[in-house]
Amino acid sequence: MRVHDLLKELREEKAAKIVLLVADGLGGLPLTPGGKTELETARTPNLDALVRDGTCGLSTPILPGITPGSGPGHLGLFGYDPLEYRIGRGILEALGIHFAVGARDVAARGNFCTVDAAGLITDRRAGRPTTERCAAMCEKLKQIRMPGVDIFVEPVKEHRFVLVLRGDGLGDAINDTDPQQTGHAPLEAKGADAASHKTAGFVNRFVAEAGRILKGDPPTNMVTLRGFARYPKIETMEQVYGLRACAIAVYPMYKGLARLVGMDVIDDLKTLPEQIQTLENLWPKYDFFFLHYKYTDSTGEDGNFPAKVEMIERFDAEVPKVRALKPDVLIVTGDHSTPSKLSSHSWHPVPTVLWADTCRTDAVTEFGEAACLRGGLGQFEAKYLMTLAIAHAGRLGKYGA
Amino acid sequence: MRVHDLLKELREEKAAKIVLLVADGLGGLPLTPGGKTELETARTPNLDALVRDGTCGLSTPILPGITPGSGPGHLGLFGYDPLEYRIGRGILEALGIHFAVGARDVAARGNFCTVDAAGLITDRRAGRPTTERCAAMCEKLKQIRMPGVDIFVEPVKEHRFVLVLRGDGLGDAINDTDPQQTGHAPLEAKGADAASHKTAGFVNRFVAEAGRILKGDPPTNMVTLRGFARYPKIETMEQVYGLRACAIAVYPMYKGLARLVGMDVIDDLKTLPEQIQTLENLWPKYDFFFLHYKYTDSTGEDGNFPAKVEMIERFDAEVPKVRALKPDVLIVTGDHSTPSKLSSHSWHPVPTVLWADTCRTDAVTEFGEAACLRGGLGQFEAKYLMTLAIAHAGRLGKYGA
Repeated sequence: MRVHDLLKELREEKAAKIVLLVADGLGGLPLTPGGKTELETARTPNLDALVRDGTCGLSTPILPGITPGSGPGHLGLFGYDPLEYRIGRGILEALGIHFAVGARDVAARGNFCTVDAAGLITDRRAGRPTTERCAAMCEKLKQIRMPGVDIFVEPVKEHRFVLVLRGDGLGDAINDTDPQQTGHAPLEAKGADAASHKTAGFVNRFVAEAGRILKGDPPTNMVTLRGFARYPKIETMEQVYGLRACAIAVYPMYKGLARLVGMDVIDDLKTLPEQIQTLENLWPKYDFFFLHYKYTDSTGEDGNFPAKVEMIERFDAEVPKVRALKPDVLIVTGDHSTPSKLSSHSWHPVPTVLWADTCRTDAVTEFGEAACLRGGLGQFEAKYLMTLAIAHAGRLGKYGA
Repeated sequence: MRVHDLLKELREEKAAKIVLLVADGLGGLPLTPGGKTELETARTPNLDALVRDGTCGLSTPILPGITPGSGPGHLGLFGYDPLEYRIGRGILEALGIHFAVGARDVAARGNFCTVDAAGLITDRRAGRPTTERCAAMCEKLKQIRMPGVDIFVEPVKEHRFVLVLRGDGLGDAINDTDPQQTGHAPLEAKGADAASHKTAGFVNRFVAEAGRILKGDPPTNMVTLRGFARYPKIETMEQVYGLRACAIAVYPMYKGLARLVGMDVIDDLKTLPEQIQTLENLWPKYDFFFLHYKYTDSTGEDGNFPAKVEMIERFDAEVPKVRALKPDVLIVTGDHSTPSKLSSHSWHPVPTVLWADTCRTDAVTEFGEAACLRGGLGQFEAKYLMTLAIAHAGRLGKYGA
């Protein structure tokens, strides 16, 4: 039986507030064997206090050894089996800029790039143009029209844009046209099935047109396309859990993921204090609050151990304001680990604390990887965290008589 | 989604060496409550040093409470779900003697036995004949021919031989003909489906012919057959993981298991130091090395606690030579527990240590059952160990964007 079907069967109405604080890439590694991780190094008095009153554990985002991208990592935290629901990069990117993608759409992530006179790529990111220039280039590309398909081109940031093709019978089994290295021309798009073959034809025509239009505009004189994806069929958190949910995130990707599972998404946020303020403002309006904090991941990706430590401490400083709202369930976790030592996402389990009045406290007294090993949640698959959350919120009835 | 499909999708090429040291039946039990197990009793300074730099845990071979045979135990360690892949004893036995079993074959394990004038079994192992006599008897049985099937009879050791039937449309749903007790005649073979019914006909005819041929040769004057099995469809470790793998084992069964998943198998090894020497010699040639150590299991099966302790200490003494090769990933585990107290395989989880530069060290400082409970790998299903191994080897890409 699918867990979602079970939850839909068992769920009950109850006024209760759940807060999911996601410190992206929270888990880490010690720089030397036996040393401390970033989280263990950081001074986190507020998280430690939460841990003392709560239950800890380590979350396995996908399966042992599997490193998740942001998409699968967050879907798991939202309670959607990341091996069942696969969301393509193009759709995530489109969602992230609030583009209203729908059932007839295929989306791709676009890059402006620089090509030489022979059409060979000399800079895959066109020297990272300003976002303003990106928008201006997209305006030019919007003039591209072709029969049988509607075309949308929207700027994202710097060299990145989104291409959406809308039509009937489109497919997304199409290769990336980005050759991933300089000195090569963009690749031809090819479809692996009939629908994708037809779609690849539109893509190649779009790229040819784009090349003609941008020719006089170096360094943004060509485009590559990646991550072709159709809009997935996915139930909303309201349909599955009966929760009115909202997302308080800064970065487009996470907003896109939240929108995909039906959360209301708050815009124009830039800092963590702004996010916390928004949480306070929206408190009466929702049952579930997803707050995403990016900088634990980005500092990890930079391989900057002390900076990640500092970002964790800044995050910790905001926790009392969340607790002051008196949520019924408060969870702090990450979507995956991003150890500074590796400068990348990793498969290592993620420290997690769940606080609720109904939680069985354990012996853990500080928030860290080694300490969480002794926690009451044990090592668990991330996809079960939401079930625990709604159970602790008193929103799940008994299974069977 | 099947994990192997996921791994095939995510795997990346990288020069990295993985060593899997399997001390067969490693896990044990204390003789008295609160006492120490064999592993906890043994002096293992080298394994303890590995543990201090690595991550520990307890491996559940199949499921809680399920005791594995050697086949499922090893398949799990090789990353093949032992509940999905079921390898019959006959096939294992054939593989163990290097018989080139193939897709059209049904194999069975044969025993020479002694029957009296009434045809009732008086010794199920025919007084354990010499292997030379076994070979001579097999030569006699090779003269058996029948239309519709090719018949192969090959000696194994003492009273044991392998029978292989090769033909089209054969089945393996056939009962053992060994009645498992003296005073009874060998049982008639019966097939549970049409293909197996046809095959059982060949089997009964073979047994009748064998009885006629061996009649004058007591004590080896009859045969029984067990573990009828078709050759399974199973992908190689190279196909699944992209690893060039080799097996450094002494006993046929383990060589057979390794060959089944496509490992190159080294022959004519007799001692652990020879195995280690072979590991050193082959170091440049493979990505993955499976080294099997038998005596932790056989001493456990003998119910000899102090002997098992000694065998663990001998195993420990060789560990520095393996570490000196500087593997990228080094795993020490067992395929199951064999507590001396039980004189048999058991279901108890198996102490495991994984060492890699990317492992998150835990608080465990000595290798033992109780200590491993506090380890970072937690209690995990054995089938995930290979996923962790290739992740730590840097041979797995990210899942999703």
